[in-house]
Order: sequence, then C-alpha cells, then structure tokens
Amino acid sequence: MVKFSKSVSNMRSSEIRKLMSLAADPSIISFSGGMPNNSLFPIDALDEIYKGLTLQAKQVACQYGPTSGYPPLLKSLKTYLASKGLPIDESQGLLITTGAQQAISLISKVMLDPGDVVVTENPSFIGALAAFKSFGAALHGVALDGDGIDIAALSAMLDRYGEAVKFLYVICNFHNPAGIIYSKERREKLLEIITRRDLCLLEDDPYGELYFDDADKDRTVPLKVMADKTAPICYVGSFAKIFGPGMRLGWLLGPREIVETVELAKQSADACSATFTQVLAHEFLAQNKMPAYLQMVRRAYKKRAGIMLSALERCMPAGVTWTRPRGGFYLWVTMPETINASDVFTAALKNGAAFVIGSAFDPKGQKNNCMRLAFSHTPEEKIEKGIQIIAEAVKSLL
Amino acid sequence: MVKFSKSVSNMRSSEIRKLMSLAADPSIISFSGGMPNNSLFPIDALDEIYKGLTLQAKQVACQYGPTSGYPPLLKSLKTYLASKGLPIDESQGLLITTGAQQAISLISKVMLDPGDVVVTENPSFIGALAAFKSFGAALHGVALDGDGIDIAALSAMLDRYGEAVKFLYVICNFHNPAGIIYSKERREKLLEIITRRDLCLLEDDPYGELYFDDADKDRTVPLKVMADKTAPICYVGSFAKIFGPGMRLGWLLGPREIVETVELAKQSADACSATFTQVLAHEFLAQNKMPAYLQMVRRAYKKRAGIMLSALERCMPAGVTWTRPRGGFYLWVTMPETINASDVFTAALKNGAAFVIGSAFDPKGQKNNCMRLAFSHTPEEKIEKGIQIIAEAVKSLL
Repeated sequence: MVKFSKSVSNMRSSEIRKLMSLAADPSIISFSGGMPNNSLFPIDALDEIYKGLTLQAKQVACQYGPTSGYPPLLKSLKTYLASKGLPIDESQGLLITTGAQQAISLISKVMLDPGDVVVTENPSFIGALAAFKSFGAALHGVALDGDGIDIAALSAMLDRYGEAVKFLYVICNFHNPAGIIYSKERREKLLEIITRRDLCLLEDDPYGELYFDDADKDRTVPLKVMADKTAPICYVGSFAKIFGPGMRLGWLLGPREIVETVELAKQSADACSATFTQVLAHEFLAQNKMPAYLQMVRRAYKKRAGIMLSALERCMPAGVTWTRPRGGFYLWVTMPETINASDVFTAALKNGAAFVIGSAFDPKGQKNNCMRLAFSHTPEEKIEKGIQIIAEAVKSLL
Repeated sequence: MVKFSKSVSNMRSSEIRKLMSLAADPSIISFSGGMPNNSLFPIDALDEIYKGLTLQAKQVACQYGPTSGYPPLLKSLKTYLASKGLPIDESQGLLITTGAQQAISLISKVMLDPGDVVVTENPSFIGALAAFKSFGAALHGVALDGDGIDIAALSAMLDRYGEAVKFLYVICNFHNPAGIIYSKERREKLLEIITRRDLCLLEDDPYGELYFDDADKDRTVPLKVMADKTAPICYVGSFAKIFGPGMRLGWLLGPREIVETVELAKQSADACSATFTQVLAHEFLAQNKMPAYLQMVRRAYKKRAGIMLSALERCMPAGVTWTRPRGGFYLWVTMPETINASDVFTAALKNGAAFVIGSAFDPKGQKNNCMRLAFSHTPEEKIEKGIQIIAEAVKSLL
C-alpha cells in the first residue's frame, strides 16, 4: 500500500498548473514562460566550444565530478563573480547546483523544519515558493512597490514572527514576476534591517545581467556585494538566462558553513550536476564568449519589452497599470480590484493568448487581479496580437 | 544567525567521507570509485551524435524541458524498457531524473516522514542510505548471501516493524557493493513476501546490462518484470553505467500515482533534468548505439574482474574470502572478524592503494571487517599492484 509523506500535501498542484498546461498549445501566443526564445541561444558559440574540446575534456565531461562542481568551472565562475564584486575568499563557499532551483530547494532542506517561517516579497517567484512549501515552511509575503520591498511592512512582519523566521527571500534585479529593480536606497535599508537582526538572506539574482541600458549596470549591484562579508547572505545565480536553461546549472555563493551543509545535502540529492554541461559552461566563461552574447540578448529583450509596452499603451483600457521594466523578462500588470485574473485568462485563452495569473506568485495564493507577462519568449511579431487579445479579454470583464 | 534544520543532523558526514577524500590523490591506485574508467566512454558515438544534431535540436537542448523529461527521450526510453519486458502502459509513469540518485532521493521525499522505517539489504548502496537518512528514516538492514537477501530474516524484520515500514530497497543485479546477483528462486520468494504484505518495493537496477556472459542475461530480469503489474514496485535505472555518469540521467518507472507525485517534488527540486544531455541520450538510444557500446564494456569489465580475481587468489592470506562477480563493477571482500577494515585502509593508503571500507555500506554503519573493491575504474595494468598492497596491509594486521 502506498502511503505518502506529510510533505506531499504541501506540494499538491493548484489551478495554476492546470492553466499552464492549457497554455502549452503551440498555436497559443503565450507570455507565460519565463525563458529565452529558442532563437536567442548561442548555438554558434556552442559549436565552437564542442569542436575545440579535447578527447580528455570529453571524457571528463562524461564522468562523475565532485559534488561541489567541476573544478575548472568553479575557477572560471569565481573569476566572473569576483569581477562583479562578489566576495570570493575563505569565508565563502561556492557550489554548482542543478539550476538555481536546486540551490533554493537545498537551502530549504538544510534550513527549514515544518512550521518555520520564510518571509518573501509579494509577489514572488513560483519555484521558490514551491520549494519552501515542500519543506513545510509557513510563507508570509511583504508588498513590493516600484523601488523594492516595503521596509515598514517588512519590519512589522519580522517583529511579528521573530525567531520563527528562518530567512528572507528576495530578487532585487528585474524581479520575477514584478519586473522592478530595487533602488539603491531600498537596498541599503533592507541590509540595515537584516544586519540589525542578524537575519539570513537568500538573494536570488538570475536576471542581474539583463539590464537594457548600460547606464543601469550600476543599479544591479547585488546586496551580497554591498553587505559586510560576514553577513549571512546566500547569493544564488544561474546560467539559465546567460547561456541556456537546458544546461541546468546554477550556483550558490554564501557563508562557508551554509554552503558546505548544502553540499552535503546535494550529495544525496543528485551526487553532482551534469559534468557535460559544466564543461560547456566553463568554456563559455573561459573563452570569454559571454560578454558578446549578453550584448546581443540585452538588445533583443529591450526591443521585445518596447513592443509589448507600446501594445499595452494602445490596447489596455483605463484602470489597468503596468511596470516599465529596465531589464529582465517580465512585465507585471495590475487590473482593477473587481477583476479576477483567472477569468481574464480563460477569456484570453479562448482567443489564443496566455499569461500567468497573479495568484500564482502570491505566497498565500490569494491576490488575483494581476498578471505576469513575459516578453522574453514570444516572437516579436506576435507580441502586439497577443496583447490585443488579452486587452479585449480585460475589457469584456470590466 | 544560521540555524539548520533537524534533518542536517542525519546528513553529517562520517569517517567515510574523510577516507574517500584521502583516496582522491591520483598517484593512489584506487578501487574506491564506482565509475567507468574514462577510456571506456563512447566518445566517437558522442561526436557523431553532436555532428548530426540539427540547429533546432541544439536550441531545444539549451531550453527548459518538461519536468517529466524530454519527450523524444521518454519515447525512446520506453521502447528500450519495453524490450526488457518492463510494463509500459497507462498504469505506469515514467520520469527522467538527475541521475538515479535523484529518483531515490525524491521517492524518499514523497514517502518518508521522520521515524519511518526503510528496510534495505546489508550491505547496501551508500547513496541510497544517505538519501533515506536525510529524510529522517530509520534504516534496518537484512543480510545478503550469494543468492540474494535472507528471506527468513527479511520476514522477521517486516513482522517486527509492521506498518512503520514504508518500503524495501534492493539491488538484485550485480549488487553494489556485494557484487552478487539474485537467483531466480530468491527473486520469486521476495516477490511473494512483498505481494502478500502489499509492501512498496524500490528496485534499483543500474548494473543489469553489465553481465559478463550472454548466458547470464536471463538471470538479470528485474523483479518489476516478474511481478504482477499492479504491484507497487518503483524501478529505478540509470544512464550512468551504459552511457556516462556525467550526463546525470536516470529514470523512475513505477505506479502512476507515485511517479506523478515524485514529478511534483521534482518541479521544486530542479525543475527538469539537463535537456542538453537528454537530447544526447535520446540520440544514443534512437540511433541504436547502445548495443555495440554495451558489448565493448561488458568485455572490458569481465577482463578487469578476472585480473582482480587472479591477483586476490595469488596475494590474499587464508581466512579472507570474496565474491566472484558475474557482472557489474564490484567485488566484496570479507576478512576475519578480528580485522577492522579502517586499519587496513590506513595501512594500504600509506603504500598507495585505496578501497571503500565495509561499514560505509552498513545501514547502521557498524560491521567493518569487509571492503568493496571496484574493478571498473582502475587501469588494467595497475590492478595487480593495488591488490598486492591491500593484501600486504591485511597480512600486517592478522
């Protein structure tokens, strides 16, 4: 007889999964997926890399590697992280993970007992919320505005849950799903709060490289760079948006004791991440192929975001507002409180367009007059038409 | 302040990890690693596969895939599994995992609450024991003999723990670490027991293809093939030993409800396994490159096993016994009860040879007059010398 563990009740899929699967039909114009368009992957670079691999490198690529990561990749990644100002020294550990998702999941495994509190932004990243919940965490969200998390509300939340709070989870750069970037001032205030309380911070930064304008580069400096080196900040990054999600490679940079404990958990989770793709990612970094690639995708995403913004301005009825992204993949649309995004979804899908409803990103799964539109994946020429369909759906429900 | 979860106390690494790291020095003749030798990977096949990939296939390889797996790989894997007699129908689910290790870990996550009992063989696979423990399971081992698990002892164990037993974990083919293969009779008796008790079975079969003699192929038929299709058997397999561990690809074939629940857990664990290596594994199967590769490695492992057996016969003192493997990677050596394998390890390492001590494979970490010798990884010409060193260490402690 099959008896599942208690944790399974926290994993059961919701309405969202059903809606997402409906949107998988390729004839649908979908703004659902938080992923690059297939045409944007660096296939020429990949071909060059594969052609240049020695027999020995290919053999190593087929073999198990250390749980911490393929040593040459750890080295080239350290060089890359150091160039962004991140602390690479004896006080910190670095671990390659099977996507950033695994880093978030394993941190949850080593930090969370059932009933522990995780404070997140509201809205927040679906995958992180699911990982926290799967280890029994109680999630409490703090509202975001255009400059970042609401500091007063955060303080009140931390006061309220006190010692039960295991960590705070934030995405400061080109937020998923909110599309915003934290201001410098908000970053400073956030750091002040976590430092005063000696609170663990999980900083997720998959989109930091994807600023549309070089002038914004300075705004993307991670909290981990600004903070004192002794602050308990776990910085999670990913190759998904700067190379390819299909490599399934992310990383965790954080206090040595935490990273070593996560490495221990990784041993029994999947032993090591794919050595094959680690070899490719190492070459991508070591051969310095990333800068040119990033230039190209930044331009591409900026253009797509612009097309989507123009379409929203032309099509959306009064009372609907949206963020103006300065980078990343997403635009967050807020409709009048009377509108349920699920109804908009159903109406839009009928006419061939899809997005992700706002409640998917609410830690409590409640608030639902919002939607996330990803402009990263949809071909440029289809964006206008998709927005038209969604705007018509909104109008029909006003 | 960093506060770890309760589960971390079950992950703390033991003596074994320290010993393994000592053995990593490349000048050491190591029989520790359960892995193919680098020279045995199918690099020519890989080159052909990469060269033959279309632009579109490479783009898909860089992209996220469904959590369940890259659909063409699921299809080619089903064809392969069906050819082995495994049930591929609506009652069963199939999931691609990040190595077989992830399948074992995620089954643990969805099945085990702290204190639940998992019954294993003794000795058993380190990685599985670590996964079970990391979710708080209480482990109880049942002795193995040359034909498989001790049926009377298993019955007694199941009587003793009753409803607390969540599942039984076994490796019937070319056991890691014991090197044995279950007899047909023992398989039938085992199935009888789990059927009568309606007990979940986790059947791990990474080595089934690695029989040394074609005549033994019929002996490798999985329990999942022999059992009634409605039996709650989760069959875990891996590409690690039939393609390359660096691909990090395994699979879980089992009752649909279990596999769908594991898939839900995988969503928040790593979203999907590397699409890049899934594309390669699919081509390896679909282009029918595996049969010739398997022929080659079966011969190579048979030869290495033979060299190791001859060396043991020549070098080991009386009172030491070992299994005679008919396939797989391992030989299990039993020394007189008075000898501690850790002492042998220390003495052998000093002279340049290494192995894994028996207690690593004991669910309770106790019994320690045994050692596992892997013949899969060490170059042929070094096997004799390594065995000599270990035999001298044993003699010095008698």
